[in-house]
Amino acid sequence: MKTVGDLGEDPLIAQLCGGLAVSDEVLVGPGDDCAVIRDGRTLTLLKTDAVVEGIHFLPNAPAKKVGWKAVARVLSDFAAMGGEPGELLITIALSRETPLRWVKELYRGMSQCLELHGGVIVGGETTSLPAGAPTMISVAGRGKVTKRRLVTRSGGKAGDSVFVTGRLGGSIKGKHLSFTPRLEEVAWLTENFRLRAMMDLSDGLAKDLPRLAKMSGCGFQIERDQIPRSPGATIDEALSDGEDYELLFTISARSADRLEKEWSDRFPKLSLTCIGSLTTEESDSLSGGWDHFTSPS
Amino acid sequence: MKTVGDLGEDPLIAQLCGGLAVSDEVLVGPGDDCAVIRDGRTLTLLKTDAVVEGIHFLPNAPAKKVGWKAVARVLSDFAAMGGEPGELLITIALSRETPLRWVKELYRGMSQCLELHGGVIVGGETTSLPAGAPTMISVAGRGKVTKRRLVTRSGGKAGDSVFVTGRLGGSIKGKHLSFTPRLEEVAWLTENFRLRAMMDLSDGLAKDLPRLAKMSGCGFQIERDQIPRSPGATIDEALSDGEDYELLFTISARSADRLEKEWSDRFPKLSLTCIGSLTTEESDSLSGGWDHFTSPS
Repeated sequence: MKTVGDLGEDPLIAQLCGGLAVSDEVLVGPGDDCAVIRDGRTLTLLKTDAVVEGIHFLPNAPAKKVGWKAVARVLSDFAAMGGEPGELLITIALSRETPLRWVKELYRGMSQCLELHGGVIVGGETTSLPAGAPTMISVAGRGKVTKRRLVTRSGGKAGDSVFVTGRLGGSIKGKHLSFTPRLEEVAWLTENFRLRAMMDLSDGLAKDLPRLAKMSGCGFQIERDQIPRSPGATIDEALSDGEDYELLFTISARSADRLEKEWSDRFPKLSLTCIGSLTTEESDSLSGGWDHFTSPS
Repeated sequence: MKTVGDLGEDPLIAQLCGGLAVSDEVLVGPGDDCAVIRDGRTLTLLKTDAVVEGIHFLPNAPAKKVGWKAVARVLSDFAAMGGEPGELLITIALSRETPLRWVKELYRGMSQCLELHGGVIVGGETTSLPAGAPTMISVAGRGKVTKRRLVTRSGGKAGDSVFVTGRLGGSIKGKHLSFTPRLEEVAWLTENFRLRAMMDLSDGLAKDLPRLAKMSGCGFQIERDQIPRSPGATIDEALSDGEDYELLFTISARSADRLEKEWSDRFPKLSLTCIGSLTTEESDSLSGGWDHFTSPS
């Protein structure tokens, strides 16, 4: 019998979404960082994202950091659409043996992230798990974006310059629990530039860049040695580790110079690197990156 | 060390929500069936709800019914606020060994429920689980309601008549996987009557009625032998089994007669029963009902 592990994550999602009903109000459905719904003059972003013990965090990770991560992942997706956070719903699935203190710290981490970056918790759910089952925190929520600032994965054009923020690889050493969702950077970028396509890097550049290029109907070529690496990370790790939560975006080549200059004035502490371009031709091949159902455990 | 099992579900939620930031746009926060957000002239409902293998469904339950249940639970919550469903996000957490066929059937069940009752799936997420961990399906979504039709848990007044739809108890025999969210009934009720307080019965009348009464600042008295029971169910089972997904609501005593008369013309196949009233005095005591963290497994 064929299992989800035989198929892999992207083909599974494609199969599941194939038969879904559609609605005129839904501007962007499954496949982008968020769904986008037309609500009169504004656009609503909808997103859900879960972290699971043993997959996204280790049992001994500090609860406050786990809470931060659970919320920051969703905020990072709002940023990736050009938007800002609104209201969030929190689902925590716990075994009865979970210390009360752990859950309180979890909420403290979530609240800290929201105080810094915006968004409020308006509800949620607690559910029990069979003894020994891994804790899971699922965060769903609503964000908003104006039409002018909306950036999807599918707007890239051949010839666009491809940029990434920050440095990639080695997130498992700590960044994956304490990263900053790039909301401030996105607010500035969408105010001052016309970004063509954007996503946040969660499964590794090797997995995510092909997704963006494919949705834009393009190929890509990158300079592997241009990829900005975290201290100590190899090029392969920068391509494949995942959980970078940095921005990957494209912009017309003629805007690229002005962007690089103004960026370094505005965000001197965060690197911005042009790693290549979108093409009409077949892509460079990239292997690696994280697939929930086929990557080695 | 104190665990969540020592504390119980309602006190846990109260503790977690105590420290949360609030927003002027949030009309109803944690504690009701849905959160309610003011969006210009309309009201947005936000809800998230999860089903877990071994808790909400057995490993051998048909996947299509599990999908139906996962979605219908959220639709039941939109109904309980007087609203209707909008866009949903689906999170499925699976081990790699899950048969592809199972997941496809799950989606088929969700789609069938939405085709019948309204609402569209606009996105979601798949995540892997460590081997052997129970499958979990979390459904988050947005509904809408007009100001005139909105019914919270907190609007009940002493003297109100308390009604329940359908028959209670014994849901585990099958109804919990195939129930009908009471959207049609709610649309009619809120069009023709001013309901004071409402919720859907998910943890059993013995647990849920005290919640509604408490949020309305009232006590209650009920006629135990008036409680409408499923065939074969005892009064205790009708009070405690849970997962009835019927409506529990209150209405002024003087509207109760007209309601009973018009209801039986409009919905001849679904019983509506007055089981008692809200009071100013201390409540009847009820024990039983489902608590995720303290009920016997």
